[in-house]
Amino acid sequence: MRIEEDCIGKLAVDEDVLYGIHTTRALANFPISHERTDPLLFKSLIIIKKAAAQVNAAAGTLAAPKAKAIVAACNSLLMGEHNDALVAPAIQGSAGTSVNMNVNEVIANLASHHTAKPVHPNDDVNQSQSTNDTYPTAGKMAALQALPSLQQALTFLVKSLLTKADEFADVVKVGRTQLQDAVPTTFGHTFQAYAHLFQRDQVRLTRAADDLRHVNLGGTAIGTGLNASPYYREHIVGQVNHLIDLNLEQAEDLVDATQNCDVLVAFSGAMKGLATDLSKFANDLRLLSSGPQAGLNELHLPPKQAGSSIMPGKVNPVIPEVVNQIAFQVIGQDVTISMAAEAGQLELNAFEPIIFRDLLQGERYLARGIDTLTANCVTGLTVNRQQCAENVGHSAISATILSPYLGYEATTKLVKTSLKKHVAIPELLRRQHQLPDTLIAHLFSPDVMTNEEPVQKEAAGNKR
Amino acid sequence: MRIEEDCIGKLAVDEDVLYGIHTTRALANFPISHERTDPLLFKSLIIIKKAAAQVNAAAGTLAAPKAKAIVAACNSLLMGEHNDALVAPAIQGSAGTSVNMNVNEVIANLASHHTAKPVHPNDDVNQSQSTNDTYPTAGKMAALQALPSLQQALTFLVKSLLTKADEFADVVKVGRTQLQDAVPTTFGHTFQAYAHLFQRDQVRLTRAADDLRHVNLGGTAIGTGLNASPYYREHIVGQVNHLIDLNLEQAEDLVDATQNCDVLVAFSGAMKGLATDLSKFANDLRLLSSGPQAGLNELHLPPKQAGSSIMPGKVNPVIPEVVNQIAFQVIGQDVTISMAAEAGQLELNAFEPIIFRDLLQGERYLARGIDTLTANCVTGLTVNRQQCAENVGHSAISATILSPYLGYEATTKLVKTSLKKHVAIPELLRRQHQLPDTLIAHLFSPDVMTNEEPVQKEAAGNKR
Amino acid sequence: MRIEEDCIGKLAVDEDVLYGIHTTRALANFPISHERTDPLLFKSLIIIKKAAAQVNAAAGTLAAPKAKAIVAACNSLLMGEHNDALVAPAIQGSAGTSVNMNVNEVIANLASHHTAKPVHPNDDVNQSQSTNDTYPTAGKMAALQALPSLQQALTFLVKSLLTKADEFADVVKVGRTQLQDAVPTTFGHTFQAYAHLFQRDQVRLTRAADDLRHVNLGGTAIGTGLNASPYYREHIVGQVNHLIDLNLEQAEDLVDATQNCDVLVAFSGAMKGLATDLSKFANDLRLLSSGPQAGLNELHLPPKQAGSSIMPGKVNPVIPEVVNQIAFQVIGQDVTISMAAEAGQLELNAFEPIIFRDLLQGERYLARGIDTLTANCVTGLTVNRQQCAENVGHSAISATILSPYLGYEATTKLVKTSLKKHVAIPELLRRQHQLPDTLIAHLFSPDVMTNEEPVQKEAAGNKR
Amino acid sequence: MRIEEDCIGKLAVDEDVLYGIHTTRALANFPISHERTDPLLFKSLIIIKKAAAQVNAAAGTLAAPKAKAIVAACNSLLMGEHNDALVAPAIQGSAGTSVNMNVNEVIANLASHHTAKPVHPNDDVNQSQSTNDTYPTAGKMAALQALPSLQQALTFLVKSLLTKADEFADVVKVGRTQLQDAVPTTFGHTFQAYAHLFQRDQVRLTRAADDLRHVNLGGTAIGTGLNASPYYREHIVGQVNHLIDLNLEQAEDLVDATQNCDVLVAFSGAMKGLATDLSKFANDLRLLSSGPQAGLNELHLPPKQAGSSIMPGKVNPVIPEVVNQIAFQVIGQDVTISMAAEAGQLELNAFEPIIFRDLLQGERYLARGIDTLTANCVTGLTVNRQQCAENVGHSAISATILSPYLGYEATTKLVKTSLKKHVAIPELLRRQHQLPDTLIAHLFSPDVMTNEEPVQKEAAGNKR
Repeated sequence: MRIEEDCIGKLAVDEDVLYGIHTTRALANFPISHERTDPLLFKSLIIIKKAAAQVNAAAGTLAAPKAKAIVAACNSLLMGEHNDALVAPAIQGSAGTSVNMNVNEVIANLASHHTAKPVHPNDDVNQSQSTNDTYPTAGKMAALQALPSLQQALTFLVKSLLTKADEFADVVKVGRTQLQDAVPTTFGHTFQAYAHLFQRDQVRLTRAADDLRHVNLGGTAIGTGLNASPYYREHIVGQVNHLIDLNLEQAEDLVDATQNCDVLVAFSGAMKGLATDLSKFANDLRLLSSGPQAGLNELHLPPKQAGSSIMPGKVNPVIPEVVNQIAFQVIGQDVTISMAAEAGQLELNAFEPIIFRDLLQGERYLARGIDTLTANCVTGLTVNRQQCAENVGHSAISATILSPYLGYEATTKLVKTSLKKHVAIPELLRRQHQLPDTLIAHLFSPDVMTNEEPVQKEAAGNKR
Repeated sequence: MRIEEDCIGKLAVDEDVLYGIHTTRALANFPISHERTDPLLFKSLIIIKKAAAQVNAAAGTLAAPKAKAIVAACNSLLMGEHNDALVAPAIQGSAGTSVNMNVNEVIANLASHHTAKPVHPNDDVNQSQSTNDTYPTAGKMAALQALPSLQQALTFLVKSLLTKADEFADVVKVGRTQLQDAVPTTFGHTFQAYAHLFQRDQVRLTRAADDLRHVNLGGTAIGTGLNASPYYREHIVGQVNHLIDLNLEQAEDLVDATQNCDVLVAFSGAMKGLATDLSKFANDLRLLSSGPQAGLNELHLPPKQAGSSIMPGKVNPVIPEVVNQIAFQVIGQDVTISMAAEAGQLELNAFEPIIFRDLLQGERYLARGIDTLTANCVTGLTVNRQQCAENVGHSAISATILSPYLGYEATTKLVKTSLKKHVAIPELLRRQHQLPDTLIAHLFSPDVMTNEEPVQKEAAGNKR
Repeated sequence: MRIEEDCIGKLAVDEDVLYGIHTTRALANFPISHERTDPLLFKSLIIIKKAAAQVNAAAGTLAAPKAKAIVAACNSLLMGEHNDALVAPAIQGSAGTSVNMNVNEVIANLASHHTAKPVHPNDDVNQSQSTNDTYPTAGKMAALQALPSLQQALTFLVKSLLTKADEFADVVKVGRTQLQDAVPTTFGHTFQAYAHLFQRDQVRLTRAADDLRHVNLGGTAIGTGLNASPYYREHIVGQVNHLIDLNLEQAEDLVDATQNCDVLVAFSGAMKGLATDLSKFANDLRLLSSGPQAGLNELHLPPKQAGSSIMPGKVNPVIPEVVNQIAFQVIGQDVTISMAAEAGQLELNAFEPIIFRDLLQGERYLARGIDTLTANCVTGLTVNRQQCAENVGHSAISATILSPYLGYEATTKLVKTSLKKHVAIPELLRRQHQLPDTLIAHLFSPDVMTNEEPVQKEAAGNKR
Repeated sequence: MRIEEDCIGKLAVDEDVLYGIHTTRALANFPISHERTDPLLFKSLIIIKKAAAQVNAAAGTLAAPKAKAIVAACNSLLMGEHNDALVAPAIQGSAGTSVNMNVNEVIANLASHHTAKPVHPNDDVNQSQSTNDTYPTAGKMAALQALPSLQQALTFLVKSLLTKADEFADVVKVGRTQLQDAVPTTFGHTFQAYAHLFQRDQVRLTRAADDLRHVNLGGTAIGTGLNASPYYREHIVGQVNHLIDLNLEQAEDLVDATQNCDVLVAFSGAMKGLATDLSKFANDLRLLSSGPQAGLNELHLPPKQAGSSIMPGKVNPVIPEVVNQIAFQVIGQDVTISMAAEAGQLELNAFEPIIFRDLLQGERYLARGIDTLTANCVTGLTVNRQQCAENVGHSAISATILSPYLGYEATTKLVKTSLKKHVAIPELLRRQHQLPDTLIAHLFSPDVMTNEEPVQKEAAGNKR
């Protein structure tokens, strides 16, 4: 045990740990779960520490040997060494100070091995910085680094959906609105619509992420930049960009950027929107593949595991089901994030840790959920062409196409008769001799019913 | 115009309105919507005012003629007169002060017509009271008064569901888990399960409402009861109970009861739970009645209106749909109410107005939604016995019942064969001569499949 | 009473109403509240009807006299006549069909007075249309029309905040992070930060609204455009733009645009973000103005109404309080809207009515809440300069500025001594003769403490 | 590698793992996070397996040697052996089947080492069971087992609050409503109110947990109990109670209990209510301890860690801050749980995994959050008596006590004069000679102002 001291008093710290008194206190104060702060957030903080040492040295406020030692320590950590020293809990009070100090302490201890004068966690490693600018900057950097996996997952999903749209382009099926039979469409349309939906989600994520690039680094404690040299304030963001390619920009109003979490709420909102869309899609997949006998049974999901411990041969839509649940989680966490942002007071939001924790978790869950959805479900989808064709063949509501010829009310009667007598509309029409057989055949051809092909003028004849 | 004055300054008030300067200012300050404070909340406040005048008179702190005039004014308002003077907005700041003062002012003005000395809104009408005890008490009284409609709606729903359970007791249908065909059940089971679900909701509502009866009346500004006579504090709740039968009790800790909204959150939570259950039920109704041709089509909802402006003959499940939407609203407002409760600070929650507004709205929407659900949907439900029987007849998954005889793995193969060859399980069994025909007939009889009737020992024979 | 008939059967309709059987049924089916569908949504639907009649006439599918009569009827309604005939409930099942049919019926009845042949609500007024394209298009048009009021409110708020930032630019105050005293800032910084926050909200609203312009008009029932002529599909959106300047665009994928509500969720998300920011701002206003004696008392809100019915002379922050509550409502309704969007199935989202209802209500509440916030609070704000100066003068934490000179640990001791002995930091320093008096005076000058002015090199002397 | 086969096909399974093909597939299907299913849920499932083997043996449907082997395997697992074989992911599709099959497979493999005939995961270990009854039963058992830690944490908190209430009983302080100074109270009242609040939360948790005891064990796949012997159905719950003292009861309607998650929603609602209350309490702690110089500074929280990496000597309320964040998380997850419950369809809710995951996480986070709150904050609280006394001494709003003597309007003027002239109310009164000095002294004595002691009749004299 070594004894360290801070403004609270003295404390024994484990001899063999690289962190110090602050981290030790934090572990005692926040024993909520075993979950540590996100590795990407730690990594980003270390990059900031490295950049800060370099810029402070250049500014002449940090002695070169210390700067060199700090940089070396950061490099060692960035290579994954001493990972077990980065222990600050994900769920914590302190507005991130415990994370920042964990990193400061570890770097100071590592760096001190290589310098004559000891490197101080606050005076040296944290020089020109505050938790209040480094921590949210690191959080945003982490969110930006987690995004490509999510975007790639979406790109793969969209591509697979478009492939399926092509594959199913000619599969005519009954449309359904309000869960009741509606006019026909194709599975091509259906999958194209899903693809376009997720393309918009990609745009919204990109847009919202773009604002994450605006960081308050250089603002120190409350955005006024106190204790950071003008040189540092001017160069620190550039130096971070030099170390990691995230295209960060220093916010114009650092006071604003230090206290407000609106861009995090907006990013969470974009993820929540994506979650909502994924859940709708998963619902559709489960519904269209319901059966195999007493359901809609128009779509076949690739079977992934035995569905039941008691019912032999049952197979369930387990992949869409996990996607639904991830979606519910992300939607709920958007409430958490919004409440945490709302609760910020005056010059700082003390609740950033839960915001970043949920944000990063959400990005990961979504990325992995979409990956399994695409790989284990979408790419293997097949359609039940026979079922689709039968449904369309019987469909009374396809009589809608007659409305311009017969009027809404007469068509209503036709539909009711078809349903009551179990006679398909075209057959009913032929029996009634109301319309020429060629027109009937034309109207009830797949391409015309789905409006892929316009109604032929000559065939239409007396239209209205 | 008459000129009135308060601590802010002088203000012209409309000559012909019964309210005064406070209400006039509130109308200018809170022009958010045209929605006034809930009539039940106004009514409850007036009852409190009446009871307070009576108790204050008995305590000797209010002159008898003034008390008499106040009671007369309250009676007039309770009979529905001067309704247009009760204008305080539903959505407002002031923690309800504007509602309390609206009532104080109107009563004072009405009462002053009948007394030699003018009746003062604060000194006389509001004597021994504060907004901080009268307003939340009135809000709880309103919630309690709105509850019977909701409970009666639920009682009617439960009764109708049990009637349907009886009616459909013998209708065997395919069960579905994870939207995939499962072992058979009956529509009797199905509707009984819904009935039992809503019975629990009734219990939870009753339980949560029971805590609403605990009021902070007598606590005045912050629960210490300052400026209320001991006599008043002891008798006011009893007097309110005398005027309206809500079985109120004075909270033991008035300081606690003045600042905390936890019982409102709990009541909202019970409504949210009910909403969740209603939405699940509505979803099931819509799903089971999907079709009429390309859906499950096992249940028929009574047709209530033409479903489409373009598709003739279409009929949609509009009643369950409105129930879903009410449910979403109530679930969202539970978040609103929780946030408002969380935001209370120190000795008072300033956000009670939105809590009571959403709570009372929720009670009404739910009551009316359930009423239309029962009257316009549940009572008219019929089942498609033919469809149900066909589905059960074909069902491969009903082979589950063979698992104890053949084992999980052999049964799995049987199910796969049945699905592949489109041969029903009993037929397949008969062809394979694995089990005696009498046992097959016995096992696949409706009552045995749904486990209504135990497997006969002799028929079962070699079971395991 | 007149008898009308639809696919459900015959029904007596009030003789003196302009609407017909569909609307009559809807009123009976959805007695949830007295709230009608939003006037802007009705107005937008009527504009669509007018445009459709014009385009159908040009396409040759609607007889010119009928088109003329429909246009006349629409004009009459747009001028506010027959308002009492537009009664479709805001909260309803039917996915908007009841709103669309309400409008169709009223227009058909009005138009039929002016034509030889009766105008049919479906065949003529609704020609080439479905509820499923007209209703969501009208909903988006309504949201777009409600937006300028909200944006203007924000513009006025931002402008007022910037004015205050100028006015308070030189007022140095104690910063506060995690509610504990931090390094100094100015009220100028504070109000500038609020202004910049709401400017970002404006951008996010504009961005999200931009996507609302993409409508599915021309897609009819499920986006395939069945029963709409190619001419109509090509010209209808342009014609609507001709009638109202909303710069609508026809969505590229009408199937997608018909079934997905993601752009509504995104718009709701932008409003939710704004609500979160408003609530944080309102919280700050209430906190900074707490007192007048036992609170922070740094900011004075203009007094707007007497605060208490029992405590004379009390004045409360009623305007921020109403803003908080509007924010909680909008945040809760974002959950409602997300759930409703998630619940959409296959070719349509049946829950658009609650989405549009909450969206439009949210826009209005926010606009009016911001208006009262700006007019009744922000523009009248004043600061308590004496209190601010005293707080800064005593502030031990302002010693932070010494950290680069003395180091973190020595400065910690200084702060503890200052707090314990109640001696201000500069005085303590002067007594200790650690730093030259000129440097002390320089460092603790307002502009240097708030980092408005860089630390002078010569004064700084031996810095590090 | 060993090759196993299921209804999907053949698969290579790691030679050295105890689980089998189902678990292997699940790990591939649900790579969402590294979080495994909750240990308490696994433990509960194993207890159910053990009880089931015992009851099945007694029923004569499971051979005694197999039952014995299964029980031995369960005992080994319950002692913590082979923990690394229980790997089913917490976030998963399959409605829990993967958890149930993970346990079935591991037990079967372990048991098979001890029997001549291999023990089958489905036919033997899972005999008379389905995931659909064992998994939710195990989930409820886990929630019940996690509850005592939470209740004990609350008991400790309540006790500490009551101790503080005693300790601070005589500390008069300014009350605050709407963040503005109100009439005086005591810190005794304040802490008693918190204690009573959390006592109600305890009651609500107990109440909601009571419903968790009703389990659907014996209902098998959909509640009809198919494939479970009458003996098993009658005895299984009793046998589980014999193995673990949770006082479970078999639900009366097993179909209902299998498909509805309402009791989980209600339990989550109780946790959400607790979270809301904790957050309010944490907010109050942070606000009352704000300062140390430029805040309310009436309460001192025990310092727990250095507050800032840049501001020396700063100490922040880190313990309440972590409590706030846990609260936000639980409130958000209540939305998740409600959505998951709402999404249940027909005979089963496929989304129970996320419900149980969030429920159990919430219980743990709350228990640990409350523990650190009590141990690291509440028990060490002290009050700043001097600050409290000064605030009360100056308080103009304490003039409220004069209202019954002087009237609301005259008292208003007095308050305004006091605030303007900075003269305390008693002094002002003495100067004005309106009331006898003895009455003034009496009224402004601490006990009278806080209404601990009634106003003396003789002193009061001419009251009204």
